[in-house]
Amino acid sequence: MMRDQLYHHSHQPFYRSPFGAVPVSREVTLRLGGTLMPTAAKASVRLWREGLGEEIIAMSPIEGSETAKAVWEARFIALKKPGLVWYYFVVEHEEGVRYYGNNSQRLGGLGQMQMEAPYSWQLTVHRDQMHVPAWYKEGIMYQIFPDRFYNGLSRNKIRSPKKNSFLYGHWEDDPVYVKDPVTGSILRWDFHGGNLEGIIEKLPYLQSLGISILYLNPIFEAASNHRYDTGDYKKIDPMLGSEATFETLCQKAEALGMRIILDGVFSHTGSDSRYFNREGNYATLGAYHSKNSPYFPWYRFKNYPEEYDCWWGIDNMPNTNEMEHSFRSFIIDDEDSVIRRWLRKGAAGWRLDVADELPDPFIRELRQAMKETNPESVLIGEVWEDATNKVAYGERREYLLGDELDAVMNYPFREAMIRFFTEKDSGAETAMQLMSLYENYPREAFYSCMNLVGSHDRTRILTVLGEAPDEAGMGTQEKIQYRLPKKKRRRAERRFYLLTAFQMTFPGVPVIYYGDEAGMEGFSDPLNRRTFPWGSENQALLNWFKKMTAIRNGHEVFSKGDWQLLSTGENHIAFTRCFCSGDEGELAVVALNRHEKQSVVFQEKMPRSTEAPLTDLISGSQVILEGEWLTLELAPQTVMILLAPLKTTACEDDKVV
Amino acid sequence: MMRDQLYHHSHQPFYRSPFGAVPVSREVTLRLGGTLMPTAAKASVRLWREGLGEEIIAMSPIEGSETAKAVWEARFIALKKPGLVWYYFVVEHEEGVRYYGNNSQRLGGLGQMQMEAPYSWQLTVHRDQMHVPAWYKEGIMYQIFPDRFYNGLSRNKIRSPKKNSFLYGHWEDDPVYVKDPVTGSILRWDFHGGNLEGIIEKLPYLQSLGISILYLNPIFEAASNHRYDTGDYKKIDPMLGSEATFETLCQKAEALGMRIILDGVFSHTGSDSRYFNREGNYATLGAYHSKNSPYFPWYRFKNYPEEYDCWWGIDNMPNTNEMEHSFRSFIIDDEDSVIRRWLRKGAAGWRLDVADELPDPFIRELRQAMKETNPESVLIGEVWEDATNKVAYGERREYLLGDELDAVMNYPFREAMIRFFTEKDSGAETAMQLMSLYENYPREAFYSCMNLVGSHDRTRILTVLGEAPDEAGMGTQEKIQYRLPKKKRRRAERRFYLLTAFQMTFPGVPVIYYGDEAGMEGFSDPLNRRTFPWGSENQALLNWFKKMTAIRNGHEVFSKGDWQLLSTGENHIAFTRCFCSGDEGELAVVALNRHEKQSVVFQEKMPRSTEAPLTDLISGSQVILEGEWLTLELAPQTVMILLAPLKTTACEDDKVV
Repeated sequence: MMRDQLYHHSHQPFYRSPFGAVPVSREVTLRLGGTLMPTAAKASVRLWREGLGEEIIAMSPIEGSETAKAVWEARFIALKKPGLVWYYFVVEHEEGVRYYGNNSQRLGGLGQMQMEAPYSWQLTVHRDQMHVPAWYKEGIMYQIFPDRFYNGLSRNKIRSPKKNSFLYGHWEDDPVYVKDPVTGSILRWDFHGGNLEGIIEKLPYLQSLGISILYLNPIFEAASNHRYDTGDYKKIDPMLGSEATFETLCQKAEALGMRIILDGVFSHTGSDSRYFNREGNYATLGAYHSKNSPYFPWYRFKNYPEEYDCWWGIDNMPNTNEMEHSFRSFIIDDEDSVIRRWLRKGAAGWRLDVADELPDPFIRELRQAMKETNPESVLIGEVWEDATNKVAYGERREYLLGDELDAVMNYPFREAMIRFFTEKDSGAETAMQLMSLYENYPREAFYSCMNLVGSHDRTRILTVLGEAPDEAGMGTQEKIQYRLPKKKRRRAERRFYLLTAFQMTFPGVPVIYYGDEAGMEGFSDPLNRRTFPWGSENQALLNWFKKMTAIRNGHEVFSKGDWQLLSTGENHIAFTRCFCSGDEGELAVVALNRHEKQSVVFQEKMPRSTEAPLTDLISGSQVILEGEWLTLELAPQTVMILLAPLKTTACEDDKVV
Repeated sequence: MMRDQLYHHSHQPFYRSPFGAVPVSREVTLRLGGTLMPTAAKASVRLWREGLGEEIIAMSPIEGSETAKAVWEARFIALKKPGLVWYYFVVEHEEGVRYYGNNSQRLGGLGQMQMEAPYSWQLTVHRDQMHVPAWYKEGIMYQIFPDRFYNGLSRNKIRSPKKNSFLYGHWEDDPVYVKDPVTGSILRWDFHGGNLEGIIEKLPYLQSLGISILYLNPIFEAASNHRYDTGDYKKIDPMLGSEATFETLCQKAEALGMRIILDGVFSHTGSDSRYFNREGNYATLGAYHSKNSPYFPWYRFKNYPEEYDCWWGIDNMPNTNEMEHSFRSFIIDDEDSVIRRWLRKGAAGWRLDVADELPDPFIRELRQAMKETNPESVLIGEVWEDATNKVAYGERREYLLGDELDAVMNYPFREAMIRFFTEKDSGAETAMQLMSLYENYPREAFYSCMNLVGSHDRTRILTVLGEAPDEAGMGTQEKIQYRLPKKKRRRAERRFYLLTAFQMTFPGVPVIYYGDEAGMEGFSDPLNRRTFPWGSENQALLNWFKKMTAIRNGHEVFSKGDWQLLSTGENHIAFTRCFCSGDEGELAVVALNRHEKQSVVFQEKMPRSTEAPLTDLISGSQVILEGEWLTLELAPQTVMILLAPLKTTACEDDKVV
C-alpha cells in the first residue's frame, strides 16, 4: 500500500482518528503518506465546513518522522456545532501540485490521486451525547401492513367497510388495483379486512419469532387500504378497531415485551379528510369548501379550490404547509396534539413518512414534543439514501446530527444486500458500501438503523433474490400468477437464509416485513402487500428466522458490539463483532460464502484475542484459532456465526478500530 | 290515395288478405290498384318463396270490375310449409314495365313504384295452430339480475364468495369493472351478494307490482357476477343458494301466481367450468386438459389447448359445438338433461341466450324436449332484430315459424319507443315500425313478445329518455357519478310515464327490468346493473307502475285484444284494442301526446261501435262518442286509456282488421 504515491485511508485509525462521525468540538487527526511525501514541499488539508466554507489547514510530518517526512498530519476541531465537513489533501511538489481525495465511488476508505478538484471525504459532526433508547436499538422489528396481516374478528367479519369499497372474497385472494382504464386513477380501494384484533391475536406468534418492535403502516381513518391518505389523525380507522382496541394492543404487546411504532404521515392528508373534505364525507368545513375553513391555511391552492399542491401530483393527497402555525399546533404542540396523544395512548414511537418532504425545523419540533411526552420514545424517518448527506429540494438535511431523527429506514442496506446476493457486486464492493454508511453515520444512528430488506414499497425480497423477470414487461395477470420456478425459488431461499444471517448479526435494528419470514413472494405494490399466508408458512424458512432472531436476541454482541470487516472477496464477506461489558466480553465472527458451488478459504488475523475455541452457533461445531489467526473454509452457500468469550485483557481496549 | 299510379297497402284488408302472417296452405289474396291499372296490358305478382324460388302469378281484374280494370288481384297458397314469401308487383303498360314494391324503409304497408327491382313485402308463413301458454302470454314479466336484486341473508352476509373475487363493501356501492389496464381483460369479478333468498323475500313486493313472470339472469354456478360463463349447468351457484332454495323459490312464487323463466346459455360455457376447466378449479378432466376428456368434443380448438373458438373472442367463454351428440344429450335429451332437470325442479321456461349462435335444429330439439317435459313451458329467444327475417351467419333463421321459439325479446319495440319519446321519430313513423312487426310476426308470437325497454345489456331507460350525454366521451368516475340534472330527470320521468302506459296496453308481454320502476338511472354495463335501491324507490313512479300493471292485469283486452292504429301524428299515437269473449267484449282506446307544451286534437272513426261512454282508466273522466266518431284532445305529455264495453253485435266480427 505504501507504494502508492499518496496514501490516506479513512477507515484506518492511523490515518484518520477517531473513526467515522465525531461529536462537536472533537479534535480530529488526519494523516497522509505515500512515496511522494518525503520529497513534498508543502501539504495541507482542504476543509469545507458546512455553514463556514473553505479552510486550508497546513500539515506537518508526524512526530518522530520530521526528517523522513514519510507521514504528514493535521489536527483540528472538525466543527463546533453539528454539520458536515468535507476534506481532501493538497501536496505541493517539485513535479507540481497534487490533489488526493475520496475514491470515484465516493464511498470513503482508500483515496485516489487526481490532477485537480478531487472528491472529498465526508466527516460527520453530530451533537454530543446522542442517545437512542435501548429498547429500540436492541430490538428486532416487524413491519405490519394492517389490512393484510390478520383478521381477528370471528368468521372473518369485515367491520365498517367504507362506502364504495371492495372487499376480497377470501383472505387468500391476490390484491389488484381497481383503476380507471382511461385516467389510471384509482376507482375503488380494496380491503382484505386485517385489523388490530388480528395483530393482538398474533402477538404470541410475533413473540415466538423474537420480535420486540412492531412498526405499523398507518392506522388512522382513511379512505384507502394503505391509509397514507389520512382522513382523521385522531381516530383509529374503524375497519381496524377503536381507540380501545389500540390501547389494548399496546398493553398486550408491552406485556409480551413489544412496543408499537406508528406511521406519521404529515406531509399531506387525504383529500377525503376532516381537514380538506373534498369528497364531503365529513361534517367539517373543509379547506376545499371555504377559505374560511380553519384548515384552509394548511394547504396550498393554486387555483381555488380545484388546483392545489399535492403529493406526487396525486390529487387525493393534498400537501400540507407543515410550518403553518395551526397545523404545527395540531400535529405537534397542543396538549392533545397528534404526536402526544398517541404516545400517551401507548405508542412508543413514530416513523415519519417521506421525511424529505418535512422541513428540518418541523422534525426538530416534533422530536422535542415526543421526548417531552415520553423520553423513551423513538423517532424514525423514511429516507431512501445515505441520510447523513441527503440533499432534498436543494437543502442539506440534518436528520441524524442529533436534534432530529433517532434512526432512518436503511434502504441502502437493502440495496447492498441485494446486489451482493444476486452477484451484481463482489463481497469487497458490498463491504465498501456498508463501510461508507458506518463511517458517515453517528454511531448511535448506525446502530439504530432500520435494516430492512422488504417493505410495502418494494418487491418482496424472495422475488428479488430469485431474480424474477422484470415486471415492467409483464401483464397484470401474469404478474399476479408469477411464482419463482423451482430452481430459482431454491436459489432465492438459500440466498435469503444467508442474507437473514447477515441482517441479524449486523449493527442496526433488523426489520422483518410481515410474511417475508413465511416465504411470501410478490412483485411491487400491490403484490408485495398480499395477505399473510396463515397455515401455509414455509416452515423451514420460518424456523431459520426463529433461529436467527434467537441468536441475535441471545447475544448482546450483535446489537451492541463493534463491527469490523475481517475478510472480503468476490463471493464472501466476513466480519467480527466485539462487545465488552465490564470485564467480560464476547467476540463473534460472521462469515458467509454466497457461491453456489465453490468453497472459500481465508486466513485472517483476529482483531482481538480469545483463548477459547469459537463455536458455530448454527452447526455447533468448533473452530480453534492458531494464535491470532483464524482460518476458515466456507462451503458453498453457507454462513457461520462463530462465538467465543473475549479475554478480560481484550476488553481493556474498548474503542472501535 | 287512389290518385297514386299504382297502389297496394299491405295493412289494408282490401289489398292483402288475411292480414299479416298466415298459417301454412292458407290462400292469400293480393290486390293492386292505382290510376295506371285501367290501361295496364298485364299485371303479375312476383313471388319469392324461400326454398322454392321465384314464381310469377298472373293477376286479373277483380270480380265486378272486369271492364273498369281498376283493381287487379291474385290468389295463391302462400306456402305449404313454414317459411317466408316475398312479393312485389310487375305491371306491363304501353308506357313500359312498372314495378311496384315495398317502401324504401321496407316496413310494409304502402308501396312505392320503381323502375326496376323494387323491395318486396314480406309474408310470413307459420306452422298451423301455434299455441303459446296463456300464463305466459297474459302475464307481466320482471327481469332480475340476481347479484343485484336483494340479499336475503341476515346481516347482508355474502355466502360462499368465489376465489379471487371482490365483494362490495355496501349494498349501495356503484359497480365497476376490475380490468387489466393493459389488456383490458377482467381481473376480478365483483359481487354485491344478491341471492335467491332475496328474491323469495321480495315476492310479495313483486306481487304488489302485478308481476306474474320472473325472468332470472343465469343462476348456475359460474365465475362471474353475470354467470353467462357457466361453470356447472346442474348446480345453483352457491352464492345464490342451493337446489332447495331454487325449489322453494319456484314453489313460493307459484303460490303467489308467479312463474320462473331461466336463462339458458348454451352457445358457450365458462372456461372455468366442469367441462373446459382451464383454471383447474374443478375436479373433472376438462377439455382443456386432455383430448381424452369426455368434454373435448364439445369445443373447437384451433391449436390445442391454448387456441379455441370463443364467444366474441373472450377467452373465458369457449364456444360449444351445439350439435355434437354428447353435448345435445347433456343439455337437451338425456333423462336428466339440463333442460328437463330444471323444468322438473320448478322452472316454467327458458330464455335462450344469443339464439343467433344456436343452430335451428338445436333449438327445435330443445323445444321438443321442453314441451315433452312440460307442455306449458315456454321458450324465448334473445334476438335483437325482427326475428321473422333475421339472417345470422348467412342463414335465414326460423325462430318464430312455429317449431322453435314461443317468443323473442322485443328489442325493436324498445328502439321504437325510445325514438318516439326522445322525438327522433314522429308518431307516424313509430306506428309504421310497430306495424311492420305486427305484420311480420305470427300473431301468437307477436302477442308473446318480451316487450322490454330495459335489460342488463342496455343503458337504463330513464337515462336514455333523459337524453344523457354520450357516455363514449366520459371517464369511468364521471359515468358513475352522472345523474340526470333536475330538468332532464323531470322530462325523462314524464316520458317514462307515457312509455309505460304504452307498454302496458300494447300486445305482447310487458317486461320490467328490475329497478326501472324505482327510478334507477345508469349508463351501460356495469351501471345498468346497480343494486335495487330498497328504501329509496321513487314512490310516484312506483305507484304509476302499479296503476299501469293493474290496468293491464284488470282487462283481458290488453293482453288478448286486437290491436289497431287509430290516429298518429308528429307527437301522438292512438290505437285501439278490441276483445270479445262470447257475446261480451271490451274496446280500449290508448292515446298519448308526447309534446311538452302543445295539445293534440284528433277526430277518428272508431273501428267498432260502442254505445256506452268511454271511461278514462287513469283520470276516471268520460268521453262520449259522436256516433262512430271519437274526438279527443290530449293535453301536453298525457296519456288516456279509455275503456268501454262493446256492443254484442260488434263482437260478431271477430277478425283482426
